Amino acid sequence: MLRIGVLRFVALPRSSSFFFSTSSPKFLNPPTIRAKFASHSRTMAYTTSSGSSSKLLFRQLFEKESSTYTYLLADVSHPDKPALLIDPVDKTVDRDILLVKELGLKLIYAMNTHVHADHVTGTGLIKTKLPGVKSVISKASKSKADLLIESGDKIYFGDLFLEVRATPGHTLGCVTYVTGDGPDQPQPRMAFTGDAVLIRGCGRTDFQGGSSQQLYKSVHSQIFTLPKDTRIYPAHDYKGFTLEMQVSTVGEEMLYNPRLTKDEEEFQSIMENLKLAYPKMIDMAVPANMVCGLQDLSERPAEPVAN
Amino acid sequence: MLRIGVLRFVALPRSSSFFFSTSSPKFLNPPTIRAKFASHSRTMAYTTSSGSSSKLLFRQLFEKESSTYTYLLADVSHPDKPALLIDPVDKTVDRDILLVKELGLKLIYAMNTHVHADHVTGTGLIKTKLPGVKSVISKASKSKADLLIESGDKIYFGDLFLEVRATPGHTLGCVTYVTGDGPDQPQPRMAFTGDAVLIRGCGRTDFQGGSSQQLYKSVHSQIFTLPKDTRIYPAHDYKGFTLEMQVSTVGEEMLYNPRLTKDEEEFQSIMENLKLAYPKMIDMAVPANMVCGLQDLSERPAEPVAN
Repeated sequence: MLRIGVLRFVALPRSSSFFFSTSSPKFLNPPTIRAKFASHSRTMAYTTSSGSSSKLLFRQLFEKESSTYTYLLADVSHPDKPALLIDPVDKTVDRDILLVKELGLKLIYAMNTHVHADHVTGTGLIKTKLPGVKSVISKASKSKADLLIESGDKIYFGDLFLEVRATPGHTLGCVTYVTGDGPDQPQPRMAFTGDAVLIRGCGRTDFQGGSSQQLYKSVHSQIFTLPKDTRIYPAHDYKGFTLEMQVSTVGEEMLYNPRLTKDEEEFQSIMENLKLAYPKMIDMAVPANMVCGLQDLSERPAEPVAN
Repeated sequence: MLRIGVLRFVALPRSSSFFFSTSSPKFLNPPTIRAKFASHSRTMAYTTSSGSSSKLLFRQLFEKESSTYTYLLADVSHPDKPALLIDPVDKTVDRDILLVKELGLKLIYAMNTHVHADHVTGTGLIKTKLPGVKSVISKASKSKADLLIESGDKIYFGDLFLEVRATPGHTLGCVTYVTGDGPDQPQPRMAFTGDAVLIRGCGRTDFQGGSSQQLYKSVHSQIFTLPKDTRIYPAHDYKGFTLEMQVSTVGEEMLYNPRLTKDEEEFQSIMENLKLAYPKMIDMAVPANMVCGLQDLSERPAEPVAN
């Protein structure tokens, strides 16, 4: 069974059948849509589990040029081995698809935490190569995608799910995807924070509807309230190429994040004085990412926006 | 309690006390040395566990220039939180030490899987900054280190341990460190393979006593005989910068490794025809790594060896 806790479900695979059920009491969501996918017969995946859930296959992948992490999650206890990718990059789509195939998974969602300014999302390219896959991004991002998700939505892959938390501030439409808190969900929980929390850092707040005040509120109300052992998996790890850590925890960032351990006023002051250069790829990447990487090149402005 | 299953124990911290016990029946080793370390009082580490062991804190770190992975392991259920680093790089030692301190760990071992030719190990630098730490490398590498380990040795950190498997072929002295198979050890098991098995690849065999025949035998007898869900953590991930995967499993490599799925003859032929360039840093790195990074610059040859 695959369920997604949204009503803004634009399209489903041809083989799907639908029925409705009520969502869990914890989430006051719209009725849940369940979609049953065609059986997927490959069986030779070996599980690399994370935490105490033996159901979850989890892989962290890296794209060097933009220092982007892409995450692959799948429920390998489910006969279909339904899988999703978070923040795939266009340049590494072939790698991602090869891995999905080798592991015998059925990719169902290609998701973005937000509209990236530094690289083109791989979600569009993935859709052209694996037609059953649905692109996912937040409604607040004002982008085009198959599924436009909102805070509180639950995105099911097999019996596992991700909970959507709105964490605006880096951009207006940023979300954090958090694994569920049920006994059959991975423990400790895992938070895919996009650019809201980077390891010992956070995303800039000077473009795309960014706001340091909003980011501060998002992190403290939506991420730092999670259990302290929740693993933080960010969209990037820049940190001057000297501190390449690939995972942190909520507890660690609450203690050691040089920006987010400050009070709101100091945090805003830090963010307003970063003096960062204009993002190199923003004029190309953002329009492409607003349509989940399925850009029509003829629609791009003839001249790039001035730096 | 900290134990290391070797008799070639060169030095122990000042605060250590020794006593002997028999090793586990599975390993026909020399008697086990136990060393008790001074209490370590920091307590604010949040555990990122791996597999089903809640004792293990595990982090995978990356050094971009040489594409090297460094691994941090600690037993956080032990009051001292004893930790070890596998394959640290000189350039990222400050990052590694900062992380160790932030997590409240007591670093006891800085280990190498082999004498690296592409970067200088961080083990020497770590010893100068954290004097209690012992450097570890195989006896077969003919290098200098505090602990010279051999096949079958068990390296304890708290109640967890790594088992040493000799896996020569990339170099004469390569070893693979594998987590124990007891019920109180991480499940699935984890293998730190150095350059013996890379994800969908393997190390070259044309330098430092390398032998494709020996590598084939090592991998098939020592690594591919582990449980199929054993996680493979390699020393590098090059793969043309297009397939940056950070972990694989024994089962996956048995199915998809383009070199190691071939028979021995074909494997040797592949390895003999790689036509690789002479390693850039070998003349500087190998002498330094033969002394675990504690090189005396005056001992280096006046002229680099000709390419």
